Amino acid sequence: MKKIIELLKDKKRLWHIIFESDDVPSRTFDIVVMFAIIVSIACAMLESSLHVDDFSINSIFHQEMTVTGIIKIIIIVMEYILSILFTVEYVLRIYCSPVKRSYMLSFFGLIDLMATVPQLLSIFFPALRYMSLMRAFRLIRIFRVLKLFAFINEGYVLLMSIKQSMTKIIVYFLFVISLVIVIGTLMFMIEGGVPGSQFKDIPTSIYWAIVTLTTVGYGDITPVTSLGQFLSSLVMILGYTIIAVPTGIVSASIIDETKKRGVNGRCPRCDRKTDLHANYCKYCGEKLK
Amino acid sequence: MKKIIELLKDKKRLWHIIFESDDVPSRTFDIVVMFAIIVSIACAMLESSLHVDDFSINSIFHQEMTVTGIIKIIIIVMEYILSILFTVEYVLRIYCSPVKRSYMLSFFGLIDLMATVPQLLSIFFPALRYMSLMRAFRLIRIFRVLKLFAFINEGYVLLMSIKQSMTKIIVYFLFVISLVIVIGTLMFMIEGGVPGSQFKDIPTSIYWAIVTLTTVGYGDITPVTSLGQFLSSLVMILGYTIIAVPTGIVSASIIDETKKRGVNGRCPRCDRKTDLHANYCKYCGEKLK
Amino acid sequence: MKKIIELLKDKKRLWHIIFESDDVPSRTFDIVVMFAIIVSIACAMLESSLHVDDFSINSIFHQEMTVTGIIKIIIIVMEYILSILFTVEYVLRIYCSPVKRSYMLSFFGLIDLMATVPQLLSIFFPALRYMSLMRAFRLIRIFRVLKLFAFINEGYVLLMSIKQSMTKIIVYFLFVISLVIVIGTLMFMIEGGVPGSQFKDIPTSIYWAIVTLTTVGYGDITPVTSLGQFLSSLVMILGYTIIAVPTGIVSASIIDETKKRGVNGRCPRCDRKTDLHANYCKYCGEKLK
Amino acid sequence: MKKIIELLKDKKRLWHIIFESDDVPSRTFDIVVMFAIIVSIACAMLESSLHVDDFSINSIFHQEMTVTGIIKIIIIVMEYILSILFTVEYVLRIYCSPVKRSYMLSFFGLIDLMATVPQLLSIFFPALRYMSLMRAFRLIRIFRVLKLFAFINEGYVLLMSIKQSMTKIIVYFLFVISLVIVIGTLMFMIEGGVPGSQFKDIPTSIYWAIVTLTTVGYGDITPVTSLGQFLSSLVMILGYTIIAVPTGIVSASIIDETKKRGVNGRCPRCDRKTDLHANYCKYCGEKLK
Repeated sequence: MKKIIELLKDKKRLWHIIFESDDVPSRTFDIVVMFAIIVSIACAMLESSLHVDDFSINSIFHQEMTVTGIIKIIIIVMEYILSILFTVEYVLRIYCSPVKRSYMLSFFGLIDLMATVPQLLSIFFPALRYMSLMRAFRLIRIFRVLKLFAFINEGYVLLMSIKQSMTKIIVYFLFVISLVIVIGTLMFMIEGGVPGSQFKDIPTSIYWAIVTLTTVGYGDITPVTSLGQFLSSLVMILGYTIIAVPTGIVSASIIDETKKRGVNGRCPRCDRKTDLHANYCKYCGEKLK
Repeated sequence: MKKIIELLKDKKRLWHIIFESDDVPSRTFDIVVMFAIIVSIACAMLESSLHVDDFSINSIFHQEMTVTGIIKIIIIVMEYILSILFTVEYVLRIYCSPVKRSYMLSFFGLIDLMATVPQLLSIFFPALRYMSLMRAFRLIRIFRVLKLFAFINEGYVLLMSIKQSMTKIIVYFLFVISLVIVIGTLMFMIEGGVPGSQFKDIPTSIYWAIVTLTTVGYGDITPVTSLGQFLSSLVMILGYTIIAVPTGIVSASIIDETKKRGVNGRCPRCDRKTDLHANYCKYCGEKLK
Repeated sequence: MKKIIELLKDKKRLWHIIFESDDVPSRTFDIVVMFAIIVSIACAMLESSLHVDDFSINSIFHQEMTVTGIIKIIIIVMEYILSILFTVEYVLRIYCSPVKRSYMLSFFGLIDLMATVPQLLSIFFPALRYMSLMRAFRLIRIFRVLKLFAFINEGYVLLMSIKQSMTKIIVYFLFVISLVIVIGTLMFMIEGGVPGSQFKDIPTSIYWAIVTLTTVGYGDITPVTSLGQFLSSLVMILGYTIIAVPTGIVSASIIDETKKRGVNGRCPRCDRKTDLHANYCKYCGEKLK
Repeated sequence: MKKIIELLKDKKRLWHIIFESDDVPSRTFDIVVMFAIIVSIACAMLESSLHVDDFSINSIFHQEMTVTGIIKIIIIVMEYILSILFTVEYVLRIYCSPVKRSYMLSFFGLIDLMATVPQLLSIFFPALRYMSLMRAFRLIRIFRVLKLFAFINEGYVLLMSIKQSMTKIIVYFLFVISLVIVIGTLMFMIEGGVPGSQFKDIPTSIYWAIVTLTTVGYGDITPVTSLGQFLSSLVMILGYTIIAVPTGIVSASIIDETKKRGVNGRCPRCDRKTDLHANYCKYCGEKLK
């Protein structure tokens, strides 16, 4: 107890344990948190799978509970305990951060916020309880905890590639969104009034256009008229080129980024391992980024 | 009023306001038009979603309207007002263009034509009213209005890449069209007469072949015989390679174009920002395109 | 008549007209053949779409024909006339070829064979009549007839890229075929005996595995058990990488081939147009292939 | 018989026959095994397709068997004979391997294990009999048996490319798994309680998220609410980029590997055939890998 209070006073040490992952206490903390996240995901999955017909507070006191019902209650109790622990963790994270805003607006900070706040509201809206699964993203840190540097490095290359592609992809998405609006509208004009057609309004038709252009093709909405099938065919053949563009953008970025960083984090000139974030190869001075 | 008449006389100024986007009045014009387009899209979407059972002029005068019906009427009235404004805008665009034909045959000119003319005909064919959604393509200009040069530049690189791929893709599509005709026919020969089969004629079978080769796979038409399933399997495995080709074409173009233009509009030699449409880097003289 | 006999004697001239496409008679011949192919495709499509309930020779003589029936008869007659013309063409092609075997075993020779022979057998098996649509592949020659050299050149680059990828893709397909056999069998073991399951035998399960791995996803066969859905999920996530490989192979080939040939058939060194099949640039001597 | 005993004593010779494929006896052995595998696959496929209503030992002795039933029995007997032969082969493989563990833990060793052991257990669990189809992977060795060196070489390039991509792809998959958990949960919160919705629990919703993100799109589970369709649309448009990443990774690897090895196993400098696994071109000394 005393130790905990001491730790709470030593913000720097606490920050190190919670945010870093390079000594025994900090790695233990990370592993415990990851384990808790996995348990939390498993609980939510299991709970949602247990369908109990009559599930009310009343039934608990009247000893009419089935085994499934009892398991469900145990799981829900576990979920609430985990929720409290996660809330404490979130408060600690904010408390020990030197620049609180910078943590709260970081990727993992936003994830934690979205996973924690709804749980406080889940007393009123029970469905919000599942928002705690947002924490699944934190599992990506496993490579850092396990000190798998090759994976961290490759992940960094991927992240850089996607960042570099972002501007092109945003421009492209705006074009795709305009396109699906137009295609959806045309389709609604063709199939809208036809009896038996599932194109019941423009938003649904746009949804169909997205399903088709991305080649997902659920088949919940399909054209029934010949003209509709003809337009669909055109859209699909067009989709061939449409789907090729983001692939091309990302491929070009990854090829470019790999060339800069070297394959598997090796210098493209001397083929020796480079440090992560390094701008120049420390062996031969080759510019890396 | 006087100002408007003055402006109508000064064609050059009017042209600048309508077509350009580099000072306050011209940017205001663009933002107003974009806002009108978004409202117009929202109206059409909402209107198509409101299903009123008894919707006739008669019901208006007999006070039998439901709330939904009244909202629908308001929306339709708004759509007609917007239509008139867009028509005025289109007339102004033609009026102030120095070379009228060149505007009318440009990409945005054709979009405007296809969005405006059907609205004049929508008195006779109400469904044509939705053609105004063609204007969604104009939203792509947002980057220019907001002066997001990085996006404009990347969009230009993408456009060039697609243009460069166009010849290859057209050749490829002719091949794909021949292929789907042959596959569709073979499938019709196999499954055509089988009871319960949805391959009811050759055009439908060709539609199926396109749905399958593009990996959309709605599932509205599926083979029921073993031979049909075997041919489908072949078509799908073939489709693996088929879908790889346009991706390869576009990837090659984007990689090539990125190399020429430099990543994110930077010179590949000196890594400094290059101007859009520049043929040589203005800092080091490197040939860009 | 005399002219035709004369032409039939002058094999070399006849060969030129039929196989080449560089003067007026030979181009006229090609255009007539293409037009005939398009008419033939249109006829087959239309005929298959006309569903006549009572369609027998008997009904013709008893004047009970409907309008649809009469149209269908006219189309079938047209198809038989076209068949005769195509057969004559095929015989002429063999007749005038200097090396008959070399034509018969070429791509277009085999297409012609597969399109012609079944028509002679279609008196016994009417469905074989549709095999004449195999000729759709001949439409690809349009670029040569219309002297669109840019398209011919790009088509040639594509062909070379695909040829170059062929060995890799064949190895890959053998792997994919082994994989779908194994996945299909596993799935059959999981879902085979479950009531309501569509995995009724191993071939059907393999068909499902192909539908899933290629991301076509008809949805005619889907897992119903939790274990089946779990295996499916693994297969789909695996399919992510699986589908990436042929795309990577073809992309690498196209990039390589484009580099060799230059973009749009231009020399990579001097940027001037190169001749098709040229090994060296005729302007600067750069090795092209 | 004596010869066999002699061979069993000469472990080195036996190992050569079973594992290598470069003289007549060893190639004959490989071809026999491959033929047996194909027969075994064909048997399992056929057997699973024959649905016999009353199929019990009893019916055999009461002469009530149908023709289908008799065929099924013959096939099952054949499968058991093949099983015994494969088991003998597996034992021989272990017996003659100089380092037994190294064979047992190799890719083909594990395949053989997974294909052989379940067959011994199939007396208790008949469904396990089908596990023998795991051997389908062994068919990939066909290229080695038929001495198709070009294919072996290209297969090697592919394998290297995939190995090189593995780290990136694993990082990526962990991200995708986190993403589908979050998307699935959000979708369950939206559509979970809606009547007629197929999103009955979180695991099913995650399965849906995988089906959608991979663009498989069975359509067995589809959103029914507007909000659900809106989220789906976002997921699909996101999926555009998601699916592009592994393709980009693999493309970059194949391009890189092809550059190193040269196209079609040729040296990138002198364009002459290189040996498999060679580090330097034997003609010009160019570093290959």
